This record gives sequence, C-alpha cells and structure tokens, in this order.
Amino acid sequence: MCLYTPQYWPFSAPPEATILGNGEYPTHNIPLQIIENSKYIVCCDGSADKLLAHNVIPNLIVGDCDSVSSEVKHKYCDIIRQINEQDTNDQTKAVKTLLSQNKKRIAIVGATGNREDHTIGNIALLVEYNKMGTDIAIYTNYGVLFACYGAQTFSSRPNQQISIFNVSCKTLKSNGLTYQIYPFTNWWQGTLNNAYGNQFSIDADGDYIVMISY
Amino acid sequence: MCLYTPQYWPFSAPPEATILGNGEYPTHNIPLQIIENSKYIVCCDGSADKLLAHNVIPNLIVGDCDSVSSEVKHKYCDIIRQINEQDTNDQTKAVKTLLSQNKKRIAIVGATGNREDHTIGNIALLVEYNKMGTDIAIYTNYGVLFACYGAQTFSSRPNQQISIFNVSCKTLKSNGLTYQIYPFTNWWQGTLNNAYGNQFSIDADGDYIVMISY
Repeated sequence: MCLYTPQYWPFSAPPEATILGNGEYPTHNIPLQIIENSKYIVCCDGSADKLLAHNVIPNLIVGDCDSVSSEVKHKYCDIIRQINEQDTNDQTKAVKTLLSQNKKRIAIVGATGNREDHTIGNIALLVEYNKMGTDIAIYTNYGVLFACYGAQTFSSRPNQQISIFNVSCKTLKSNGLTYQIYPFTNWWQGTLNNAYGNQFSIDADGDYIVMISY
Repeated sequence: MCLYTPQYWPFSAPPEATILGNGEYPTHNIPLQIIENSKYIVCCDGSADKLLAHNVIPNLIVGDCDSVSSEVKHKYCDIIRQINEQDTNDQTKAVKTLLSQNKKRIAIVGATGNREDHTIGNIALLVEYNKMGTDIAIYTNYGVLFACYGAQTFSSRPNQQISIFNVSCKTLKSNGLTYQIYPFTNWWQGTLNNAYGNQFSIDADGDYIVMISY
C-alpha cells in the first residue's frame, strides 16, 4: 500500500517529518507505518519513552520535559530541546521547532486517545498550523484529520466516512457527500457523513477541519 | 468516596439513569462505579455486548441495532428498542428514550475513546441535551464533561485541571481559573486551564462545555 495516496495525505509531496504526540501510542497499521517510514521523528516529551520502547530512536525530543523519564532525559540529553513556556502545548512546540528547521510537511501520530480535552485541543490546533503555512495532518487509529481554508476537493472511496468540523465558515456547502453540509454552529453537526464516490468537494469561506476515516 | 460530590456531578440530585455508549468501555474507577451503582442502564446498540461481558444486564438496548450481536439481540429481544432513523446517533436516541420515561438526570459513560469524530460529536451533543431540559454529564476515564448556559459557579479542588469549550458565547469570562478565559473562536483555546481553589465561576451569555479532570 502506498501510504501517501491522496485519500490519506491530502498534500502534493510526502511529509518531511513526523511528530509523535504523548497520547495513546498508535496501534493501527497506517500511523505505525508512518513512524516506521519516517526520516525525522520529533517526540513530544514523554512520548520519547514510548517510541524507545518500540525500539525507535527519535531525532529530537521537544517539550517542557515534565513527562519524559529521567533515564531517557539523561541518556538522550543531546537531542532534547526543553521549552518551558506554558502558553503552547508540546505538540505546538514540536511544530514550531520543525518550522524553524524549514520542515513544513508534517505527519502527527499519537495525538489522541487519552484525555478528551487534549484530543480536542490537538485536533483544533490544526487550524493554527495551517495558518503557519504547514502541510500537516493527524493520523489516528481511525482516520486522518487536517485543516482547510476555503474551497477544496478531496479524494475518497465510495461510502468512506467523513466528518467536517466548522471553525470559522459562514458559507459551507458540499458536493459528493450523503448529507448536505451547512455553516455548522456546533461540532456534532458535521459528524458521520459519507462520500458518494471517488471525490467530494467543499465550498467554504473560512477554516474547517476534515476527518476522513480509513 | 461519594460519587456524586459537586466536583463530579454538578447537579442537585443524583442521576436516575446511565447510558453506556459504544465507545471504549470504561477502565477508571468513577465511570465503573457509576455503572455499578446505576438503577437503570440504557445501552447504545453494541455496548450491550460489552456490558453483558462485564456481567451486568442492561434495562434497555437502544439504537439502529447494527452493532449489537445477533445472539444478544435474540436473547434480550424484550428490552431492545430498535430505532432506525439516521438523523440522530445512538446516544441521542438513548437520551430521548429516557426523556420519554421522564428520566432527565442522566450519566453517560463509554461515550469516548474510539473514533475521534464520535468522541467530539458525543461531547458536543451535550449542548443539545441541555436544551432538552436534562441534567446530563459524560464520565470518561479522565474527567466529567457537561454543557452550561450563562453564568455558573462550579466546585473544584485547588489545581484541578479544567477545560472550557465555547459553543455560542460572545461574552465568556472566568473567576478562579489560572488563565482568564475569553470568547474563544476555536476549541483548543479553552483547554488546559486550572482551578485556583475550591470553586470557580464563569460569566457567559451562551452555551459552553466544561471538562473537569478527576
């Protein structure tokens, strides 16, 4: 299987780096393959312990270092970039670090699956990363999530499950989805839609997040 | 431990019923105790199989019955209420069923932890249930989530982790939280706050969702 088919990676060139978040370590084949094939992995704080437990050495460990084990912190001190400021979370610190290295195509895994507010926060932050000029997507055990602005067309399989979360659109319409979308005022309204065929398109005037189930 | 202390159950009287969602079966002590102490349990579709595997018999099984096993469907046919309409999810079908029985104080467990769009949808739906006149909260492995409208005061412990998701507020202010809140335009902005002391209050003119970590 080609990992970066348009259904799973909606950008033109494959990612240059992977961020491993400190949520649940992936179990699905797709995020596991992303880790396996990654040339550059940044771990968010304590996720370094999880990656090392899977016999993979990160390229960088970023965060406030309150959850990485003291053993890993000591052994891998040369690849730790401790950033103590509390206004951004570790995922955002990792994104900013990659941008400072001019790596703007980024796959994020391990971002969800534990605390629900972390899951929601990490997903919602995709909109901010989009504004920073990244091509970035979160790969979970269930699908891929990415932020968009304005009109876009997406690849899909017939009956593929799609959810759309509106962030700032006053106009929001779809073509090729089972249920017509509209300028949703709450996040539940855009969940559990389906693609008819091999592509669908969205007409929008602002930011929204797409989840495409595998 | 008293389950329904104000920190964990923000309503005046304890719940009359529990809904078990078809997400991840709880592992934390608090949602497990809610199941154990519940006098009336409604299962969302296939969650009936999970509850029965834990040796608890539900009072009712509600949903479109596409995920409950045929064995359970056959054996417990007298307590199955099959609702095929596709405009609402199984969680909402369970809430509406309980309201038709005049049970309006409801604890939901098992609503999160699998597909992220289901997790987000189930949490966001709390706002709709609030409008229906329920006293309803979701208990996860990490905390309790409930929807509010307007100004409210909440019990807390010092340093308890709090997240606030704005849905429709143009005014949103806090007293007793580490970071001052504001009319957030994206859901990440209200995550990872903390209570100073034994209570905090929110001044608001619309709907929002509170997550209080255990």
